[in-house]
Amino acid sequence: MENFTFNVSTDIRFGKDRLGELPEVLNQFGKRVLLVYGGGSIKRSGLYGKIMDLMKENGNEVFEVSGVDPNPRIETVEQGAEICKAEDIDVILAVGGGSVIDCSKAIAGGAFYEGDLWEMVEKRGYMGDAVPLVTILTLAATGSEMNRGSVITNLKTKQKLGFGGPSFLPKASFLDPTLTFTVSEYQTAAGSADIFSHLMENYFDLTPGTDVQDGVAEGLMRTVIQNAPIALKDPENYDARANLMWASSLALNGLTGSGKAGTWSTHPMEHELSAFYDITHGIGLAILTPRWMEHVLNDETVDKLARFAREVFHVQESVPEMAARMGIQKLYDYFVACGIPMTLPEVGIEDDSAFEEMAAQAVAHSKIDTIGFQPLKKEDVVAIYEACMTPSSFI
Amino acid sequence: MENFTFNVSTDIRFGKDRLGELPEVLNQFGKRVLLVYGGGSIKRSGLYGKIMDLMKENGNEVFEVSGVDPNPRIETVEQGAEICKAEDIDVILAVGGGSVIDCSKAIAGGAFYEGDLWEMVEKRGYMGDAVPLVTILTLAATGSEMNRGSVITNLKTKQKLGFGGPSFLPKASFLDPTLTFTVSEYQTAAGSADIFSHLMENYFDLTPGTDVQDGVAEGLMRTVIQNAPIALKDPENYDARANLMWASSLALNGLTGSGKAGTWSTHPMEHELSAFYDITHGIGLAILTPRWMEHVLNDETVDKLARFAREVFHVQESVPEMAARMGIQKLYDYFVACGIPMTLPEVGIEDDSAFEEMAAQAVAHSKIDTIGFQPLKKEDVVAIYEACMTPSSFI
Repeated sequence: MENFTFNVSTDIRFGKDRLGELPEVLNQFGKRVLLVYGGGSIKRSGLYGKIMDLMKENGNEVFEVSGVDPNPRIETVEQGAEICKAEDIDVILAVGGGSVIDCSKAIAGGAFYEGDLWEMVEKRGYMGDAVPLVTILTLAATGSEMNRGSVITNLKTKQKLGFGGPSFLPKASFLDPTLTFTVSEYQTAAGSADIFSHLMENYFDLTPGTDVQDGVAEGLMRTVIQNAPIALKDPENYDARANLMWASSLALNGLTGSGKAGTWSTHPMEHELSAFYDITHGIGLAILTPRWMEHVLNDETVDKLARFAREVFHVQESVPEMAARMGIQKLYDYFVACGIPMTLPEVGIEDDSAFEEMAAQAVAHSKIDTIGFQPLKKEDVVAIYEACMTPSSFI
Repeated sequence: MENFTFNVSTDIRFGKDRLGELPEVLNQFGKRVLLVYGGGSIKRSGLYGKIMDLMKENGNEVFEVSGVDPNPRIETVEQGAEICKAEDIDVILAVGGGSVIDCSKAIAGGAFYEGDLWEMVEKRGYMGDAVPLVTILTLAATGSEMNRGSVITNLKTKQKLGFGGPSFLPKASFLDPTLTFTVSEYQTAAGSADIFSHLMENYFDLTPGTDVQDGVAEGLMRTVIQNAPIALKDPENYDARANLMWASSLALNGLTGSGKAGTWSTHPMEHELSAFYDITHGIGLAILTPRWMEHVLNDETVDKLARFAREVFHVQESVPEMAARMGIQKLYDYFVACGIPMTLPEVGIEDDSAFEEMAAQAVAHSKIDTIGFQPLKKEDVVAIYEACMTPSSFI
């Protein structure tokens, strides 16, 4: 196990009927609020009205950034940061999923950043101040509600980059599973695949002696496998939604990744799919993950892949390579059963003409070619993209 | 899943060679330090000298409370609180295991409490201020380094009571696995049993829909099962010590207990053993736990007990009651293999004359008779104590 610092101070208010605590939480920081949200769904659901009523009664002065895109754009960040500077905002209230929260983090930092904000993102690490951030989560997926990271997209340069820093950690996050009852089947499946992928990215690492991190990840993976199908069939099942929501936060708050030396592999490859084709992040991850697992299966990785099969999918097979392959197949079948389109053509990527460029970018913007679970060169990434063009079988 | 608040802001500095960060951490709170520790082991190991040198160089004024007992006494708390008041202490530095940290928490609160300090403990919940607390952990066991709880003993009244409050949460904790290399075989086994028991207490609860909490607990239980035997055989195995140390913190920081409605069962029974006979807490827990599991095995509990057997010990048996019994047996055998004396006579409790009184106290000082995994009346507790008098078999 490697040395690490774990300091996750986000005040999590988990459960239903807790929105009444919002004024008390906001008042810790001040009265001038920037409300950030996406489309009109929080207006249709009545959540927007409830929040505005609470803030009005609390004497808040409220400014707004709305229309945050699923892959949040640098232009929206610039717009929000301008408001923070001009209006002396005390606290940002992000209401939405990971995109809204990621955008809000970049706005929070942008309010203190002098210079071009895409430059701020490109530096990848942000050590400056930020406006305090409070979140109300409406989608279980990215874990952004309890971590320091943000992913911002620049459609002009076709880049989707992760960056972050200590001041981005939300001060408080409201996690109310009932707010996810209206999440569509497609987005529920995509969100669950995203949670699963975060766990996999941290899990598949060669640092020795990380049983705590791996055991926690296995437990959370089993939780997603058990609860996503229930939420898909019965969208208002409170416990299924609650387990997915809490798993999303714990998957990416440092618990499963701290103490490990490696880097993520699938996300850098997926970021290029989203940047080039604007597809749903979680779906891209689900498509890539089993192909990536098969591509990296070798003597060095087989034991961990077999452990995954045994602990997560209860595979009984004793031959490691066979167990590993059965685990990959079970994961693929699980994604299929969740209704996820499992090839790139099904999500509108019909030809492979951009794969070389995308693969070059994936390698350039990450460390997958050096400290991945298995190092991936540009050719490896192209091969993994190619394997995603048709349905797969792994046994 | 029940509603919960999770707000664990302790700044964890995990790993070796990090003591150099201590001055910076202490300086957040001030220069006047109360150093709290147990026996002479930190002097013999050289840790005391290193800490004192760092603080001297940092310009700290240092006061001391030493000789904290394994079951820390209210008299020591009174002594420390007096010093805090008289010397205007800015920060308490606890160097030791759970007893030292628990004692330091009570001192931290006692410094602000007007009146008799045993009265403060007896109220069970402490909502007042406390002196900021920084810990350097030397024993993986209680999890006190990352939570709000404290257990204090009053030998005069034969009471050992848990109490706690938000201001008791350590501000920062240094978790250096190498500091546990010198922990004896007996204390390593006892500490591991303590960690395991915390996980079991949270796990065995009838609240529906807690897969996250249960999955995390199962992963941490497997971690203890894998790593304690390695640490017992090879005390300087860094990864084994690291996994036990980090598991100890996560077992009891709210991750595995939040969102559950029940109460603990084995700890209240063990607290009476320690209060009456001053035995090692973790050993008492190991002796009690399998007998308690068998005592509460019934139609309502069998599924959870069988899940434990399958997920934690990889039992393949399909008949639930048989699986449950095999899980209990495997746990018992595991404790035996760790060298833990598994009957009360082996730890010096030769007769059952005090069992009635102890059982009455266990019920009086807890809620085990109402919201336990299965409610335990005084007669149940006596029966469990009696079952601990001889070796057991569960299948």
